This record gives sequence, structure tokens and C-alpha cells, in this order.
Amino acid sequence: MTDDVEAAPSAPAAARHLAPGDVGLVAPRDFAHAAPFAFRGGQVLPGFNLRYETYGELNAARDNAIVICHALSGDHHCAGWHSPADRKPGWWNNLIGPGKAVDTRRFFVVCANVLGGCQGSTGPSSPNPATGRPYGAAFPPVTIPDMVRAQRLLLDHLGVAAVHAVIGGSMGGMLALQFAIEYPQLVRRVLAMATTGRESAQAIAFNEVGRQAIMQDPAWNRGDYALGEGPRVGLAIARMMAHITYLSDASMDRKFGRRKRRAAEAEASAFDVQFEVEGYLRHQGQSFINRFDANTYLYITRALDQFDLEESAGSLESAFAPVQAETLIVGFTSDWLFPPEQNRALALALLRAGKRATYAELATDLGHDSFLLESEELYALVRGFLDRPGTPTP
Amino acid sequence: MTDDVEAAPSAPAAARHLAPGDVGLVAPRDFAHAAPFAFRGGQVLPGFNLRYETYGELNAARDNAIVICHALSGDHHCAGWHSPADRKPGWWNNLIGPGKAVDTRRFFVVCANVLGGCQGSTGPSSPNPATGRPYGAAFPPVTIPDMVRAQRLLLDHLGVAAVHAVIGGSMGGMLALQFAIEYPQLVRRVLAMATTGRESAQAIAFNEVGRQAIMQDPAWNRGDYALGEGPRVGLAIARMMAHITYLSDASMDRKFGRRKRRAAEAEASAFDVQFEVEGYLRHQGQSFINRFDANTYLYITRALDQFDLEESAGSLESAFAPVQAETLIVGFTSDWLFPPEQNRALALALLRAGKRATYAELATDLGHDSFLLESEELYALVRGFLDRPGTPTP
Repeated sequence: MTDDVEAAPSAPAAARHLAPGDVGLVAPRDFAHAAPFAFRGGQVLPGFNLRYETYGELNAARDNAIVICHALSGDHHCAGWHSPADRKPGWWNNLIGPGKAVDTRRFFVVCANVLGGCQGSTGPSSPNPATGRPYGAAFPPVTIPDMVRAQRLLLDHLGVAAVHAVIGGSMGGMLALQFAIEYPQLVRRVLAMATTGRESAQAIAFNEVGRQAIMQDPAWNRGDYALGEGPRVGLAIARMMAHITYLSDASMDRKFGRRKRRAAEAEASAFDVQFEVEGYLRHQGQSFINRFDANTYLYITRALDQFDLEESAGSLESAFAPVQAETLIVGFTSDWLFPPEQNRALALALLRAGKRATYAELATDLGHDSFLLESEELYALVRGFLDRPGTPTP
Repeated sequence: MTDDVEAAPSAPAAARHLAPGDVGLVAPRDFAHAAPFAFRGGQVLPGFNLRYETYGELNAARDNAIVICHALSGDHHCAGWHSPADRKPGWWNNLIGPGKAVDTRRFFVVCANVLGGCQGSTGPSSPNPATGRPYGAAFPPVTIPDMVRAQRLLLDHLGVAAVHAVIGGSMGGMLALQFAIEYPQLVRRVLAMATTGRESAQAIAFNEVGRQAIMQDPAWNRGDYALGEGPRVGLAIARMMAHITYLSDASMDRKFGRRKRRAAEAEASAFDVQFEVEGYLRHQGQSFINRFDANTYLYITRALDQFDLEESAGSLESAFAPVQAETLIVGFTSDWLFPPEQNRALALALLRAGKRATYAELATDLGHDSFLLESEELYALVRGFLDRPGTPTP
């Protein structure tokens, strides 16, 4: 997902976190799981850390939790502000807060950086106790089910007895579906947006080009590099390319068109930035390398590519057989990375498997990242889905 | 365009060039223009070379020439075989030959490697007389109109009095349109496929990521590298990514889907090739760097990005005002790089400008590269357009 959400335009920087409807100042916490954790591939870590945030309070019945699952480049900071000086709030701040679609007056919202991530959770950039250096390519291959199992341990730790809903877009949608498959007794609702039961060859291809850009950068050094160093050039290229796939032709034309940089900003060579869209992409690449680890990018794109509900169970219907949750799948017309058909196919398979499922398709022109859209229509869908009377747990 | 056209499956290698309908063995020639050539940007070369091929014979009236214009990664070798041992014929061999849609029994076909290219025509990899080393980044910025003006000099050299048709796809379509604008007295028909009057922000963005991959490769060295060396890693990344944009989601799913490499071929690391599409893309990247120059890639993608008929004349209609040629524009439904709307817009602007123009849209699922399609429907369109009675020249 992109990181170019504009900050609220008018409020003074120091007061934005006081805006009504915002969860205000928040702080991440760490869940240190001190017991061995076996990955699906068979490798075992002696333990792991998940960095997470929560907003709202767990109720007495301990059944009002909402789990937010982030996308490839997202993190645990999905709402509120870490500091009054922050330029931007959490990445889903428009959706989550007191009185918002995910209402923190009613719900206990939990969001964790995924296992394998690089924003505080254990991943390839964490120190390998065997060497004292970052794990790098020695980190176990991580899968979407591994990420979900780690988050389940966090929920146990927090004392959550039932999850009112798991919500996620893109990779977050995959985690949400996997939650419903893996923990049918725990999860009452799943809201998965802009997602897929398995990526197309084209999506794998784009991920592969990104991985090649990283791995062919000499600074990758087979994954062995110090914190803060590594294949910055390759990672920026990977990010620039992926960023295009999160947008749409129409939204890029509206936002940049063929506008050129002002002459004052024009640089020396014919290959320096000439079009605004070029400067924007270069900025996206540069800001990404300051906040993201290249090995995590490799591991998580592999997890995305290998996620295949159909293959794992023989058919999508069989994969969904254990599901008890009510499911709402939301596709976006302009999403060409995980296009509407792939979203619709999930809802149809759930229905064929005899589950309670709905599909909603929103007409947007913002591409894959439409799930981050500020849209009353989307908010109303989310609100209605979270508010509807629960189905008695079997 | 892609270079994965399969060779004829059954004929023995040594005899394929004898297939009926093929132009057989052909040899490139060189046109050395020994007078100064001024680029649109103002820079002047003391002369230039264009490497080209011709098939068929120029008639007595010298008016049966057909000019074929190649795409970004194409060249002058568009039909026939250079050697009986060649694995593949020229890139448009399915369209051009005795009895084919572009019938070399009737027409004198001319195809030149563009100015700025790297397949024998003068470009950044040619020796700079001032230094004895390749021009590199000292080569003048080249534009589509520059390429067309150089090819006009070749046509004069060949004694061509009138061009029956200029035909091209993708960048070749831009050249074809520019030919009709620049030389209305010379060009009788234009057939432009899978093209645009100006690229969208998304197409510029993809080109920019490719350029960044090349220029951030330390071996680029600001364009200064020896022949056969240079930013091979960056160029391969650029090619892999661009290659995805030449195909379509549907064709990639049909060709590769999520098939994995056989275990016997599986390699050591989790980041080695796992899916067939990954191996295919890596092969595309690797084979490209053995035949293409990175600086030419920079120069030609810039020429593509800067081509803007609307900007140059105030409107598309004004740009087309000089055109006398009859024009057929062909768009392909699955082309998401230069999508059907952009092709249709060209025909509509020609019609609004009072020109003879037609638009045909072919339903294909092969993406941008559909113009290379083996399609009787396309052949019939081309044949019909070339055969229709000519309009008297004004």
C-alpha cells in the first residue's frame, strides 16, 4: 500500500491528534512469546516478538475484539498519532476511532506487525541469537498461516475470548480469511477487501521483478547486511514498480497526467526528472528504504505468492469448509492487482460451501489502494457489517 | 515487444528459410548519411548510419514502398532469416512475405533500425569521433520526429518516390503517424497499431522505473561504459518489468498460471525460481542484455515519453491537420499499456480533422504485443487496407 495519504490539511500540527473521532496519542507495545514457535516449513524459532497497538477496551465478555491486518508494507500503527509532531496518523485512521466505522468506543481494536515484518516484530532484520547479527536469509520462510498463528498467540495473551471481526485489505485480507479458516471458533466476522485466494501469474511476476531488483543489488550480499544498510537501490526500484500496481491508470492521470516539473526544478541531464510522476515515484522509493527492510520485502512477497487456498485444500470450497464466520468481501472496480473477479470468486466459493457470505463491489478509480479510500460508502458497509446481529456460535 | 515468438515447430532448422511465403535468406545493409544531421533538440551529428533491410523490388513508378517501423526493442530484421541456422526469423515474419498480408511480390518493404538504436544504426553505443569511445550520455537526445526524418533520408537514398504505406505497432505506430504528419506528400497510407498520441502517466511511470534500474546500477557510470559491458543487472530488471506490461493477466495465466518448477529444477534458496513465470521472466531479462544497449533503452524510452502530438500542435486535430494519408488505427482489447481508448482517440481526432481514417478493435487476450499476433483477422485487415484503391494525391 502507498504511504502518500495526505495529513489533515488545516489543523495545526500539534493539535491534530486531538481531533474528535481520532483515538489520539497511542503507543506501540511488544508481545514477547517466549516458547518455541514452529513455522509451517518446519523450522523453529525459540520465541518471537510481535509489536502491536490496541485502541478501545476489551469488554467484560472479552468478545469485542477487532483484529486489523496490515498489507505488505503496512504495520501495527493503524490509527492515532505516536507524537503530536507526527506528520501523519496511523494508516487506517480514517476508518478507526471513536464514532468511526470501526468504533473504538465499542470495540477493542488490535493490530500487530506481522511475523517476518520489520517494524518491531521478529523478522529477518532481528538479531539471530546464534550469530548476534540479523537473521537475514537464515530467517525461516514465513507464510500467511504462520503470521496468523503468531497473532492468535497475541490474542490469547491479551485475553481475547472471541473476535468480533478480522478486517484487512490486500495481504491483510489474506490474513483475515486465514484467521477464519484456522480459528473458526474464535472469529465471528471477516471483512476482506482488495484481496485474493491466490495471486495471478502477473502479480507473482511483479513481485519477482521486485525481488530480483533487491537480490541483484550487490549490497544484498545474499541477505547478509547490517541494520540500516543493505540493498537500498534495489529496494527503491522494487517499491517504485510495486507502487504503480497499487494505483490505477486513471488515478495517475488525474494526479499527475503528463505535467512536467517546473523549469526551475529541471536538472542537468536528459534522464533527470522531467515529469511530475517521475519525481513522485522516486520520492516513494526513497522514503520506503528509510522505513523498510529489504529481506522482509523478500520474505513477505514470497508469502504472498505462495498463499494459495485452492492448492492447500484441493478447492476454494474445501479451504473454506471450516469457516464459521460471516464474511464480507469487498472488491474495487479499478483494482488491477487483485481485481474484482478474484474477490468475487472468494464470496462465491464461500456461498457454495454453505457459508454466510456477501460480496460488495465499489466503483472507484484509485486502484488496489482503494481499500484505504476515504469513502462514506465504504464506511457504511463496514459499519453495517459490524453492527448486524451476530449469528449464534455453534 | 517480446522476443519469445516460437520458431516454426516442425521444419528442420536448416530448411525453415525455404518455407513458401517466407522471404528466405536476407541480409542487412547500411545507409551512411554523410551530411550533418540536426536533431530537434538542436544538437548536430556530422552524419549517421541506418542499418536496414528491404524485401521485394521497387517498381518502375517507385511508389510501391512499404515502410515498417519497429517498436522499442525491435530492429530492422522484420522478415526472413539471416542464416539457415537461425532459431527465429525476423520479428514480423508472419505478416511479411510473398503472398502474405504485406505481399513482397507487390511491395518493396523497407525496415530500418531507428536512429538512436543499437542494432547497427547510429546511437549511444556508436563511437563518438571526439573521443573514440561510445557516445554514451553525450549522444543527442533523440525524438520520434528525429527517427522519422532519418528514415526519410534513407527512402530518398533508395529512390522511393511514394510510400504506399507506413506500418508499425507500439512505438512503430508513433513513427507511422509522425511520417504522415511530417511528409504528407510522400505517405499514402498509415497503419498504426497498439499505439498512442501520447503516453499516460502510468506508461511514463513504468519507463521511469526501468530507467532508474539502469541508472542506479553502478555499472551505468553515467552512461560511460565499454561496448558489451555496462549496467547488465539494471537493464535486465528494466526488461523483466517492461515485459509484464507487454502481456496481459489472462495470457500470463494461460501460459504459466501458478505452475511451479519441477523439484529436480528447484534450487537451494527460498528466493530462487519457484514459479515458472519467474524462470520465464529471468530468461527474458538475461537474453535481452545480450542484444540490447542500456543507453539506447534510456534514450528510446525518453523519446516515447516525450512523444506528445497534442502538446506539439495544441490539439490532436491540429497535429493531424497536414495528414493526407488514409489511416487505419488498430487497437487490441487486452492492451493495457496503450489501451484501446488511446488508439480510438487517434482515429476520432483524424476524423474530426476531416481525414480518411478508420478504427478497428480486435478482441485478443495477448495484451500490448497483440500486434505481433498470428491472426487471420489481423492479416485480412492489413491486406484489405493495402489493397483498397488509392486516393488521388492532391
